Amino acid sequence: MNKQKKHAGEFAATLIEDGMVVGLGTGSTIAYFLEALAKRIQDEKMTIIGVTTSTKTARCAEELGIPIRDIDLVPMIDLTIDGADEVDQHLNGIKGGGAAFLMEKIVARYSRRVIWIIDEQKLHSKLGQFPLPVEVVAFGSGKLIAELKERHLHPKLRLDNHQQPLVTDLGHYIVDLDLEQIDQPFELGRYLDGQIGIVEHGLFLNVADQVIIGQDEGYRIMNNLQKEM
Amino acid sequence: MNKQKKHAGEFAATLIEDGMVVGLGTGSTIAYFLEALAKRIQDEKMTIIGVTTSTKTARCAEELGIPIRDIDLVPMIDLTIDGADEVDQHLNGIKGGGAAFLMEKIVARYSRRVIWIIDEQKLHSKLGQFPLPVEVVAFGSGKLIAELKERHLHPKLRLDNHQQPLVTDLGHYIVDLDLEQIDQPFELGRYLDGQIGIVEHGLFLNVADQVIIGQDEGYRIMNNLQKEM
Repeated sequence: MNKQKKHAGEFAATLIEDGMVVGLGTGSTIAYFLEALAKRIQDEKMTIIGVTTSTKTARCAEELGIPIRDIDLVPMIDLTIDGADEVDQHLNGIKGGGAAFLMEKIVARYSRRVIWIIDEQKLHSKLGQFPLPVEVVAFGSGKLIAELKERHLHPKLRLDNHQQPLVTDLGHYIVDLDLEQIDQPFELGRYLDGQIGIVEHGLFLNVADQVIIGQDEGYRIMNNLQKEM
Repeated sequence: MNKQKKHAGEFAATLIEDGMVVGLGTGSTIAYFLEALAKRIQDEKMTIIGVTTSTKTARCAEELGIPIRDIDLVPMIDLTIDGADEVDQHLNGIKGGGAAFLMEKIVARYSRRVIWIIDEQKLHSKLGQFPLPVEVVAFGSGKLIAELKERHLHPKLRLDNHQQPLVTDLGHYIVDLDLEQIDQPFELGRYLDGQIGIVEHGLFLNVADQVIIGQDEGYRIMNNLQKEM
């Protein structure tokens, strides 16, 4: 699996062009991408600007010597390379295992092109095997969880290593919905969008333009035909 | 106007019954309500539990000796008394002048009954004269403001006394939309709900069960017929 992640990450780094503003995702597959990108920057004297999606990626980019800039100080992001926790055949995905999906969603929103890099294990015919994370305001979160439970959405407050509610980079809690299978992701997304106290959810619907799936040897590519039309 | 606020606030305090869990709003009209409620608690030895909607109201309640409890530690809120910045004839409203509307909306969401207390100046045939506040994630807020500007929603980042972005109790920024007249509040609400980076907006649509409008002499009452059906 690490080999697959490495192949996907290294290929993604070849897609970056000199002068680009690049959105830098978060996660274990992205770590391979960042390393390969840093090497290209050094070897080829490339000038790129990175926009990060988490404090973790920001720290990593700094250590690797990848220049970064605040999202509000760049005009637009040319290309974002990010990971995903689960992807279906329509290139819809669930993100949020790393609790960075709100910042990832904002970066994707202002990106001309979004490419996800994953391994084969992340591909499923339908979403939902990976618990769907929802970022919520801490105030009243107990009430919201009770409400989601009543609606049979199987919510569970995510805890940190000290068994305390995990707090995101932006100061919110994460609730994971253990749904097993999501038949109507767009409808579910609209329902969650409308709930008071929910800041954002981990459904990324029609966001990725392309998905690169690392293989034991090389990689393969899925294109979002809907976005290219 | 202060006389009107006082009349509305004092009448609202008479609606509180012994044993109730009461949502305590935020604002200058609410200050009169809190004072009158504190007096009743003392004079009549009432037992009530308050759930506050801002750190400001929490401080005020504590000073007045009104017992308060965290929203997640009460089963349900029986009645919430809150203010509003603008109310239309259908009892839809705009809240957020005090930057506490996210917490106010969460408290209202878990209240059996919501009553707003206002003065006559807050009543308009259509909403929009009062700028509509939107609570946003600080990360990428510059990009979001540019987007709202493009859609002719006239956004303006709210600043504090030091000309820095005002930060809410929950760590977000406030963007005020200067719309003058909102013809389709439900449609606008749905649009704002769906925007990435927007945590919540100040449109409170079909939330209030009753509005008490303070007069120079006494008060008058408007009922939400839609909610009572």
